[in-house]
This record gives sequence, C-alpha cells and structure tokens, in this order.
Amino acid sequence: MSGRLFALSTGPGASDLITVRASRILGTLDILYAPAGRKGGDSLALSIVREYIGEHTEVRCCHFPMSADSAEKEAVWDEVAAALVKDVDAGKRVGFITLGDAMLFSTWVFLLQRIGCPPWLEIVPGVTSFAAIAARAKTPLAMEQQSLAVVSCTAPEAEIAQALSQHDSLVLMKVYGRFPRIKALLKQAGLLDCALMMSEATLPGEQCWQHLHEVDDDQPLPYFSTILVNKQWRDAQ
Amino acid sequence: MSGRLFALSTGPGASDLITVRASRILGTLDILYAPAGRKGGDSLALSIVREYIGEHTEVRCCHFPMSADSAEKEAVWDEVAAALVKDVDAGKRVGFITLGDAMLFSTWVFLLQRIGCPPWLEIVPGVTSFAAIAARAKTPLAMEQQSLAVVSCTAPEAEIAQALSQHDSLVLMKVYGRFPRIKALLKQAGLLDCALMMSEATLPGEQCWQHLHEVDDDQPLPYFSTILVNKQWRDAQ
Repeated sequence: MSGRLFALSTGPGASDLITVRASRILGTLDILYAPAGRKGGDSLALSIVREYIGEHTEVRCCHFPMSADSAEKEAVWDEVAAALVKDVDAGKRVGFITLGDAMLFSTWVFLLQRIGCPPWLEIVPGVTSFAAIAARAKTPLAMEQQSLAVVSCTAPEAEIAQALSQHDSLVLMKVYGRFPRIKALLKQAGLLDCALMMSEATLPGEQCWQHLHEVDDDQPLPYFSTILVNKQWRDAQ
Repeated sequence: MSGRLFALSTGPGASDLITVRASRILGTLDILYAPAGRKGGDSLALSIVREYIGEHTEVRCCHFPMSADSAEKEAVWDEVAAALVKDVDAGKRVGFITLGDAMLFSTWVFLLQRIGCPPWLEIVPGVTSFAAIAARAKTPLAMEQQSLAVVSCTAPEAEIAQALSQHDSLVLMKVYGRFPRIKALLKQAGLLDCALMMSEATLPGEQCWQHLHEVDDDQPLPYFSTILVNKQWRDAQ
C-alpha cells in the first residue's frame, strides 16, 4: 500500500464548518499531525476536528515557535516536513491539519515549500476566517465589479493605507497587538464607519464590534481578531 | 414552529467540498431554492448538493437573468426575496444555495440587500473557488506579510493593472470572454510566468493551464475560469 499525505483545512473554528471531504479523510488516517501554538499547549485545530478522528489514528502534536529567529523556525519546518515524508514513505496515510484554509497565511505553506508537489499529496481547501466573519456579520465581501484585498496588519503601514484607498472591500488579518495603529489608519481614510471587527468567529467566544470608534485603543483582543471593511455596504442598507 | 432561512454556500464544485453544516441543514429543509443560469436550464449548485437534499424537500429552481437590463434583474431579485420571506413567514425551513461562498461575488448578496438581517436568517460560509484552485494547483494564495487581491475581470483595466502592480498575489475572477485583454495586462506587468489559469476546479471537467504564454487568445474557455497570480512562489521553488 502506498502512503498518502493530506493537508486538511479545518475552517474558521466551528467543527461543522469543516468540509465533508476533510471530515471523511480524518476517519481514515494512520497518523494525524496537529500544530500547537505553545509547547505542550492545546491545539485549536485539533479541538475543531476531534470528533472526526478515526479510532486507530495516532495524533502527534507539533509545536511551531512564534519566534522571530528564522533559523529556529526553519529548523522546525525542515524537521516536520521530513517526518511527514518519512511516514508517507513507510506507506502510512498521514494528515496535517491547518486552521482556516491551508493556502492562506498558514504554516502549511512552509511545509509545502519543502515537500514540493509529489503525486501522493492532496490539499483539501477550507472555509477562510473572513468568509465566516462575513457570514456571521451578514456583511458581504464583494459583489459585481468590486475588488477585495486581504492584507496582514503586519505589512508596512503605507501598504495598508494604499490598499484601504484602492479597494472596495478589505480584510485586515492579524490585528492582534496592532489595533491602535489600524484604527488610526481607518480613521484617517474615513473608513471607521464602514468597518467591523470580529474575534473567534463561529467559536463559543465569538465577539463582534460593529462600531470601531467606540473601541478603546487598549481594549484587550483575542489572538484571532480580524477587521472587515466594506465601503459600499452600510450606505446601501 | 417558526420559519428559518439558510443561505447555503455549496463550495467550488465537488459535492464533498461543502461544509458538514450545510450538508446537514440540506437534509432538514422544507423548501430549497436553487439558482439556474438559463430558464429551464440545469443548476450547477443543485447538482453539487443533490445527494444531501432531504426526501421531503421541495426543490424550486429560480432563473436569474444575465441581462444587462438592471430593471429586469432587480424585478427578479425583488420577486425571489419576497418568495423566501413569504415561506419563512409560513413557518417553513427554507434554503437558498449559492456557488462558492455566499458573500463573495454571489447573487445571494442581492437577496440579502432586500431581506436585511432578521434573526431567522443564517448564512453558512463555504470554500471559495480560489481556495480550491490554490489547493489543486498546489500554489499558495499568500503567506506572512504578503497581500492578496481578489479582482473581477469585469473591472476597469486600469484598476486591474494597478492591483497587479501592488499585490504579491492575485485572484482574477470572471475571465470568461476577457482572456486576451487579461493576458496582455499580465504580459505588460511581466507576470505571465507567475500566473496559472484553472477552469471548473474540483469538477470532472477541471482544466489547468500552467503556462499562459502558450494559451492562444482564441482558446475557448469554460464559463468558470479563474487566474491565480503569485509573484513569489515559482521563484521560491
């Protein structure tokens, strides 16, 4: 029997927002790799998929350091990629779970860079956090000739400001720790009233702020906080 | 019993790329509305979800004209929105299916504009076509500080050119009928070698063009064709 590797997107957080395909594959794996933020810490991705994991699946948590030291990070990516390939070579059905969609702002991409595109690899796409936020907030992402930009708040401020001026609709990811700067940029662009912020969308701790001018700069925010801007929507209501 | 309305994203095309939540809701509906491109024509969305539809669910196909006449389109949106609300008022569990994700370039948004945000409405997000294309082509959308723009090829050429120059990664949707113009824009921006085109991703008719300079301007393309540009990926391989 020849081995397989599945990169499985878990979706935004609620267990039933995973795809039917990923849920079925999870029941058939020999080994499942689950990323964890902290060493020995819980894996959010694992908690999302737990109900679908097969009885005989061995779960291995792997810790990816948030370190700024790129040599340290690259060593971990090398190591995990090598472990995945080794298990596939041994004929195992192997899974790697990843929050949201595997191909967007995901650690999985660093593993893909190392593994390449072998025929035994399948990537299963998932619901992105921003699609879930749009659905929960009942605020569309884009329609007709509009354009959507998905920007990380870790990008240079000038790039964020440029995107804010040029697109009809924007998703600002990784707000955590950068809210005061982003709020100031939104205010400067006259877009505070077209923006909303959501944390942990579709999870029990979900929070939504519809009026960002009322949110204090020192408001403690959960790690997964995202801002959605739609310039034309509120006016149209 | 009080009525409910579910806007259900079908995902990109393969039946098992729908969410577990949408698949379960489909089994419990009294009435399912399915959009069809042509009058009396088949509904792609309906073919994706057929296996999940409950035995007692009444399926109603509705035709949305592709007309340039906005009065004609608005009349249809008014009519379908009114029909959905009427069924909910009668205590029914009603579904409306929509390709890809409900909040991105979807007819559903025109219905949402008319229905508003009543408490009986739930929107179930889905996998976007471009997440599926990235997964199938094993080409990431964005990582780290990169930004992604999702642009419709129906947008003005200058806007598309600007987005091409400013973002690391781009999704160009609605290529159909506009391929020669888009190819010329990509060539002008020096991005032909960083682009790939995919049609009907995850469906049996899926096609992928990895080398756009080899694709003739008069190449017949399926209606659902999308171009993915990632400036940094191929170099990194």
